Amino acid sequence: MINVTDYAEAARDKVPPEVWCYFEGGAGDEATLRANVAAWERWQLRPRLLVDVSEVTTATTLLGTEVSSPLGIAPFAMQSLLDPDGEVATARSAAAAGALLTVSTLTTRTHAEISGAGAGPRWLQLYVLKDRQRTLDHIAEARESGYSAVVLTVDAPYIGRRERDLRLGFQNPPPDLHLPYANLFETTPALTWRDLEWIREEMPLPLVVKGILTREDAELAVEHGVDAVWVSNHGGRQLDGVPAGIEALPEVAEAVARRCEVYVDGGIRRGIDVLRALALGANAAFAARAFACALAVDGETGVANALSLLREEIALGLGLLGCTSPEQVTRAHVQPAPS
Amino acid sequence: MINVTDYAEAARDKVPPEVWCYFEGGAGDEATLRANVAAWERWQLRPRLLVDVSEVTTATTLLGTEVSSPLGIAPFAMQSLLDPDGEVATARSAAAAGALLTVSTLTTRTHAEISGAGAGPRWLQLYVLKDRQRTLDHIAEARESGYSAVVLTVDAPYIGRRERDLRLGFQNPPPDLHLPYANLFETTPALTWRDLEWIREEMPLPLVVKGILTREDAELAVEHGVDAVWVSNHGGRQLDGVPAGIEALPEVAEAVARRCEVYVDGGIRRGIDVLRALALGANAAFAARAFACALAVDGETGVANALSLLREEIALGLGLLGCTSPEQVTRAHVQPAPS
Amino acid sequence: MINVTDYAEAARDKVPPEVWCYFEGGAGDEATLRANVAAWERWQLRPRLLVDVSEVTTATTLLGTEVSSPLGIAPFAMQSLLDPDGEVATARSAAAAGALLTVSTLTTRTHAEISGAGAGPRWLQLYVLKDRQRTLDHIAEARESGYSAVVLTVDAPYIGRRERDLRLGFQNPPPDLHLPYANLFETTPALTWRDLEWIREEMPLPLVVKGILTREDAELAVEHGVDAVWVSNHGGRQLDGVPAGIEALPEVAEAVARRCEVYVDGGIRRGIDVLRALALGANAAFAARAFACALAVDGETGVANALSLLREEIALGLGLLGCTSPEQVTRAHVQPAPS
Amino acid sequence: MINVTDYAEAARDKVPPEVWCYFEGGAGDEATLRANVAAWERWQLRPRLLVDVSEVTTATTLLGTEVSSPLGIAPFAMQSLLDPDGEVATARSAAAAGALLTVSTLTTRTHAEISGAGAGPRWLQLYVLKDRQRTLDHIAEARESGYSAVVLTVDAPYIGRRERDLRLGFQNPPPDLHLPYANLFETTPALTWRDLEWIREEMPLPLVVKGILTREDAELAVEHGVDAVWVSNHGGRQLDGVPAGIEALPEVAEAVARRCEVYVDGGIRRGIDVLRALALGANAAFAARAFACALAVDGETGVANALSLLREEIALGLGLLGCTSPEQVTRAHVQPAPS
Repeated sequence: MINVTDYAEAARDKVPPEVWCYFEGGAGDEATLRANVAAWERWQLRPRLLVDVSEVTTATTLLGTEVSSPLGIAPFAMQSLLDPDGEVATARSAAAAGALLTVSTLTTRTHAEISGAGAGPRWLQLYVLKDRQRTLDHIAEARESGYSAVVLTVDAPYIGRRERDLRLGFQNPPPDLHLPYANLFETTPALTWRDLEWIREEMPLPLVVKGILTREDAELAVEHGVDAVWVSNHGGRQLDGVPAGIEALPEVAEAVARRCEVYVDGGIRRGIDVLRALALGANAAFAARAFACALAVDGETGVANALSLLREEIALGLGLLGCTSPEQVTRAHVQPAPS
Repeated sequence: MINVTDYAEAARDKVPPEVWCYFEGGAGDEATLRANVAAWERWQLRPRLLVDVSEVTTATTLLGTEVSSPLGIAPFAMQSLLDPDGEVATARSAAAAGALLTVSTLTTRTHAEISGAGAGPRWLQLYVLKDRQRTLDHIAEARESGYSAVVLTVDAPYIGRRERDLRLGFQNPPPDLHLPYANLFETTPALTWRDLEWIREEMPLPLVVKGILTREDAELAVEHGVDAVWVSNHGGRQLDGVPAGIEALPEVAEAVARRCEVYVDGGIRRGIDVLRALALGANAAFAARAFACALAVDGETGVANALSLLREEIALGLGLLGCTSPEQVTRAHVQPAPS
Repeated sequence: MINVTDYAEAARDKVPPEVWCYFEGGAGDEATLRANVAAWERWQLRPRLLVDVSEVTTATTLLGTEVSSPLGIAPFAMQSLLDPDGEVATARSAAAAGALLTVSTLTTRTHAEISGAGAGPRWLQLYVLKDRQRTLDHIAEARESGYSAVVLTVDAPYIGRRERDLRLGFQNPPPDLHLPYANLFETTPALTWRDLEWIREEMPLPLVVKGILTREDAELAVEHGVDAVWVSNHGGRQLDGVPAGIEALPEVAEAVARRCEVYVDGGIRRGIDVLRALALGANAAFAARAFACALAVDGETGVANALSLLREEIALGLGLLGCTSPEQVTRAHVQPAPS
Repeated sequence: MINVTDYAEAARDKVPPEVWCYFEGGAGDEATLRANVAAWERWQLRPRLLVDVSEVTTATTLLGTEVSSPLGIAPFAMQSLLDPDGEVATARSAAAAGALLTVSTLTTRTHAEISGAGAGPRWLQLYVLKDRQRTLDHIAEARESGYSAVVLTVDAPYIGRRERDLRLGFQNPPPDLHLPYANLFETTPALTWRDLEWIREEMPLPLVVKGILTREDAELAVEHGVDAVWVSNHGGRQLDGVPAGIEALPEVAEAVARRCEVYVDGGIRRGIDVLRALALGANAAFAARAFACALAVDGETGVANALSLLREEIALGLGLLGCTSPEQVTRAHVQPAPS
């Protein structure tokens, strides 16, 4: 396994198609899913030379949390479909690596179990806030388990139409799968910025809003006091035809103007993708499929290796770019590729 | 059948090639036919989040006619070549769905038969006005049957050269096919704006001019008092090398400046294509081939299912875009995709 | 045979590869050869509607010569390699159609024989002027046979490196082929604008300079008193990497500013290509390979059919564009296609 | 062997994959490796005609060294893996052709052996300057053998991750290969512009800095007194995702503004690529893989033939471009190709 694409190819062979469709597929014609991967090459790196890069670190701090790398694990659901240890396997590898782990609402393990896997940095992802008290209880439970921020996914007022699932009969979630927090997974198309204000005021953790793709919503997010804006198209699984994360990042970062942190996900397969994200204004990038593939192929060891491969790629890329830390990567380190 | 492309693939297998060529093919090298499909992805959607979209409607009003969806059925000819019930099957499904139906001059059934299929919204398409009295009689007959507008196709002073038909020996129309209004299908290369003025003055229904591809002709159409401009390249079947409908729409909508309604057709296969059309200034979009394929594969049921699939895609797309009705979609909901 | 591409495919099967390489191939990597064909689709047609196009003519006048079409036959050499009647077959078809014929220096028949084929419009192509008296004698002979202009090819100070010929052992010209004017085919890398001035002054026919690809040389050509500038990259057979004719046409036409006529060749396969050329400032377009293919496949009949097919495509295109003659096609009839 | 791509294809068949990977492969996804080849066609040549090109020379002078061609041999390592005579074979061919040879630090032969192959122009490539005295001794040894300039490679503070090598088990350098100057090949991520200043002051030869890809570093190079800036991405073998050499050349040449010489390498396969480089501001271009392939296929004879083929392509290209020497090629001889 030389790079994370090796895991993607191996996972396709290993996981049954009627399950893999859920992890691999996107919405509609999957144009956005393809764009997520293709968009990165439209930005070229501009390396600076004859800089002393004998000491390079990939470590950074996100919302006050120290992490070993600017690439975190994005939330992905129902991990026991890929490995018997599910979220616990992923959490063990993340904690060992000091990598930031975001945990989906749709886990197959409890927060206590996940937190028992190791004391790494981890954040809680939430979909909806329909039952306000249960939401606060859930956050409290997670906080007790050591979670240090809340990521509110706001791009799913309805669930996207994922045709691979329909063709292969995958039910989301599968009726026979135990999900401890399944009752928190309800579509709430009525969610508004007022609800976001409410949760920001009611809970003590930093709040990340995930799914932003426009400068207008980025501005609103800052105005509503979020601690970070996470640029995402939900892995191409919600509305087909929207921009890749990296395509929306520049306008979002410009609108945010460093008033809060900015993250991006979508199609990251390489350390240089993370460098592009940093150059275009992100404090960090996140990947889900890369780690889902590694988990499916080789469980905890796979995730550990994927984290290691990507961190080494980031470190090497920083050095070859003439930077000694993620913070040194600037807009001047990228330029549009000729079309 | 998960989407309308499934029907397109199935139709190719079901309809004899020497008939299917007429419905599937375009003029010349079919560059415009391909552009019709490819052009949609050049516009990305910009979803707005944390908006209350718990109540979404696809219904709208076109020329005073209430329709259940901003996607209508464009005129396509000789439907009994695809299904024994022909236009009657299509009309039944459209009426049941409340979808706008435009009926070609080259029907294989009479307006009385078509109107007997149900009381849905329907418009009459005309090619030419050579015999003025017969034209007025035809409109009167259609009006009595419940048709509520006239669509004048102006991009066919000559019939395009469709090489698939030539290769497979398809005659347009086939000599053994009964067409009740065939005598109204004559090429009239002498048709001018004066003729359009005449029909506008002589008949009581709203007038749509179909086939406009430039701002100059859009301006002339408005000046000549049309009720709607329909941007179309005739399904790529007339002059090869012209723009896709969606490519010409922005300049036409800008020229019209809301002085009349604007429609567009060409290559629509997805609900998000309709959203793109709305965002770029159309009041509605139309599709023909998608419904021709469904009719060929599964008759009335096929058309009903295609209408349902596309309406559901539009509704879901509206909600994920942060809109609760077609009217809420604006130019700010799209941006050019990177090339 | 529905279009001229059908002839191209049939010719490839009929002519021996070691001969066909000469007619089909280009220089170097053949990037320019491919660009010649691909460049046309980068311009979209903008049709104007509701114009009276009941009377459409393709006829026009070039350098005072009446021709039946704005598409002429570009010079191509050694036609008896493709058909036993060689240039005489081509000339018969051109004369019957009233199409402009340009005759290469490297004919396999004499001007008297070619002119005996019919009294159509025809021009003489010359490569070089090394032996001045022999050049004047040659022009005089051609003029006596009815040639009405001289086309001086200036893009061949050296012969391009055509690697297909090298691989298949094609010698240019083949040692056993009789060429009545072979002694006029010598590379003269010393040819300058002074030589062009000399021939313009010494001979009584209009002078066309063929091979121009830049505004700078177009300006010089006008200043040196030429009657027409022919934009050409020699069918992609000289310097690989140069623009397609249609790519260079706009800057040349702008520089010429109607001070003389402008022509273009390269990759024309369709009537709509000729319309694009007219819209971008050409008085006429020329094709060689399309007619070489037709000649190879079906001799005189093939050329006649190719001329007829293309003229019909031009006529239909004019009508669908809202024009009744080549002169009515303007810059407003095209726009760049989205990339 | 008609062109150097023929050698590339033949070499792939001849050299064992576990060795060829080193010469053919690039870093990461090899996006930059592919860009190196693809980027050239984005610049079109603009030929000027009716210029006297009866006398064309490809000779030029680089850093005071007379060379027969503006295309030199870029440094490539460990040539005895490709041919038993290794660098000596390459040097013999280069000397016989009067072509500029740059010799890698990682030779399999000594400078004395290489210089014994012939008195052609040759420069010494260095990676690092860790042991300052040994570096000066090495330069002195090379200078005694006739080397006339030093090329300092600065884009390798770390070695790029070349995944083909990892997959096939290629070790760089192979443990059983004798490399006389292997002790000078150490990664020195601490190298800075101060070190460059030191070598410039301490050694008497002209200094070339190789690996520059930005205007910022070009400006610094000039400020630090280098004699030439060599635009390069190390054959796509260091940081994947950076621009092709030809993509970075315009901004570098503009920044340098003729204050020193400028070179470029990366993906050159054709004489016209060299013309493009000259037009965009380079004094010379360099190729490595083209000659590595020729060496692998046919040793000294192969390199001689590749040099000859490319020089003939350059000469023909100059003539068809209307230039009689490399110095006559200007920015006006190229334009961006349409995308």
